[in-house]
Amino acid sequence: MNEPFSFEPVALDDADDTLVIVDQTQLPNIVRMLRLREQADIRNAIRTLQVRGAPAIGVAAAFGLYLAVKHSKARTFEPFADELKAAKDDLVCVRPTAVNLPWALGRMESAAHGHKELPIPQIIELLRGECMAIYQEDIQMCRRIGEHGLTLLRDGDGILTHCNAGKLATSKYGTALAPVYLGRERNMLFRVYVDETRPLLQGARLTAFELVSAGVDTTVICDNMASQVMKNGWVQAVLVGCDRVAKNGDVCNKIGTSALAILARYYGIPFYVLGPTSTIDLSIETGDDIVIEQRPAEEITSLWYQKPMVPEGVEVYNPAFDVTPRDLVTAIVTERGILRPPYHETLPLLFQGSNCKNL
Amino acid sequence: MNEPFSFEPVALDDADDTLVIVDQTQLPNIVRMLRLREQADIRNAIRTLQVRGAPAIGVAAAFGLYLAVKHSKARTFEPFADELKAAKDDLVCVRPTAVNLPWALGRMESAAHGHKELPIPQIIELLRGECMAIYQEDIQMCRRIGEHGLTLLRDGDGILTHCNAGKLATSKYGTALAPVYLGRERNMLFRVYVDETRPLLQGARLTAFELVSAGVDTTVICDNMASQVMKNGWVQAVLVGCDRVAKNGDVCNKIGTSALAILARYYGIPFYVLGPTSTIDLSIETGDDIVIEQRPAEEITSLWYQKPMVPEGVEVYNPAFDVTPRDLVTAIVTERGILRPPYHETLPLLFQGSNCKNL
Repeated sequence: MNEPFSFEPVALDDADDTLVIVDQTQLPNIVRMLRLREQADIRNAIRTLQVRGAPAIGVAAAFGLYLAVKHSKARTFEPFADELKAAKDDLVCVRPTAVNLPWALGRMESAAHGHKELPIPQIIELLRGECMAIYQEDIQMCRRIGEHGLTLLRDGDGILTHCNAGKLATSKYGTALAPVYLGRERNMLFRVYVDETRPLLQGARLTAFELVSAGVDTTVICDNMASQVMKNGWVQAVLVGCDRVAKNGDVCNKIGTSALAILARYYGIPFYVLGPTSTIDLSIETGDDIVIEQRPAEEITSLWYQKPMVPEGVEVYNPAFDVTPRDLVTAIVTERGILRPPYHETLPLLFQGSNCKNL
Repeated sequence: MNEPFSFEPVALDDADDTLVIVDQTQLPNIVRMLRLREQADIRNAIRTLQVRGAPAIGVAAAFGLYLAVKHSKARTFEPFADELKAAKDDLVCVRPTAVNLPWALGRMESAAHGHKELPIPQIIELLRGECMAIYQEDIQMCRRIGEHGLTLLRDGDGILTHCNAGKLATSKYGTALAPVYLGRERNMLFRVYVDETRPLLQGARLTAFELVSAGVDTTVICDNMASQVMKNGWVQAVLVGCDRVAKNGDVCNKIGTSALAILARYYGIPFYVLGPTSTIDLSIETGDDIVIEQRPAEEITSLWYQKPMVPEGVEVYNPAFDVTPRDLVTAIVTERGILRPPYHETLPLLFQGSNCKNL
């Protein structure tokens, strides 16, 4: 059993303008905190996946943008806006798929442009406030996603999840795992099956780490075992996060998510996507228009760890075979409520009213 | 590029009664040949997966049984049969799922019991002949599976396979990959996508090794990427082997096979199971009656290699995400022909006539 996971995965240290993150490339073997004070360091942390998960990337990038212009010598808005744009362009391209990165950076830029009449130091202070707001809103948002998601679950349910859409992907609570943590606070017990999530093993390394640290009954499986676990009747709901949701409801998430959705449909298990409305990109008509990031071959060919990949205390289900017998998104859960199909009708409604708990 | 793969994966050395195998636990980094002369060594090789693949296990176990009684001091059939039974019982339980193990051992035992009137040395010689027959028949059988399977493919097809049902799983040619090798002999070019097959990476280590060695266009993917590869339109057929086929057509094969079948159905891609008739177990009504081997947790938790897991020259497709949009055995290919559904009708026919090329 690990030490209780009592720190924040992404935090803004108000005292000295520092982004504090857990280096996720070192988990679960080493819990190393990084204190980042330069835009270049944050950019590098996003690029190398030291900080990852769409909401956490948004928070980190916004703070990176603030740090980039914090010591600006510009005296008028125009050169300041140029500096801001250059820093934004430098950050926005680091990872192409998650929408939270351009969303958070765009929000920061808009905040500056909305107050161009102010003196530069005040705009900088305003940008600092905007980072803090994004960060605090992220925490509240996750909690609300958890509240809505919890209404879809029953005490004792078996849950299958993929990759990491937990605390480590956000400022707190997580998205897909928020209902599990909120349920835990209310003495509900869930059994969670975690896909190891090749090639980078975010499931085995990160999700299993944070779940076990929180005392949740956790079983790691290889990605190809999900079908058997579902067939066994062990899964009552699949909960996954999302990196970008298109206008028609197509969901872009970690490689392997589509396979889980097809399997869940086959076995008659509800498949829930949980994420903030900032993940919904109405400018993208369908999933076909989303750029899929291609990553280095070495992530697959060279297994980069020889140490244990799963924290102590996690159960493992490891069948060597499965039986092939003869013969996709149930709901999208956001901080504003639960969306049901047809998504091309319900998704836009999310951006019209504020009181749309069940669409 | 590896050296051409010119040795047999399992061979019987006639000169000194030796089973010669490639140690599959060391591939692809080390090509180590093992010469086994004792039943205990063969038993250990099967247990530790130095030799694996249902047909190859059958050949190895039969030879192990012969070696166990080769120096028998029994002078009458009854004590000899007891020795044979003890050795068979010792071998048969090493791996519970594949039917070829009990099939080959049963065939050896029957051969002895069918000639109980002969002097013991002659029975031993007869058992030796039976091993050789199983071995030679395995080679012929794979070639015929290849011939039948090739009729289902077109030059240039993209093929997805899982685990290893190639040369390394048999005495020669393989089962699922036999059509690929035969096609290659006839200048047909296939592109083969290979699931790495967690946790033991038989796809990345073994299948990719033997395919690249044979000059086949080979791309390794993580198991969770198969859905995306299919969606891309890159796969015209899924070819997998089988460890046991039930009377109703349910197919037991490496963990992950059922997921591929569900995905293939979803994407409208034919899903072919290739294996010898010895894999069909009419004594098992449905897949639910097949015992699924459970393996140690450490296979998943500790990644046991830090060296490259994929041989040089293999391409890798490594998307970081996929898109989840909105919404199983096409044929069983045996050495005796191609079976189509309904399998509960066509499978028994296989054991009635000899000329049932298309059922």
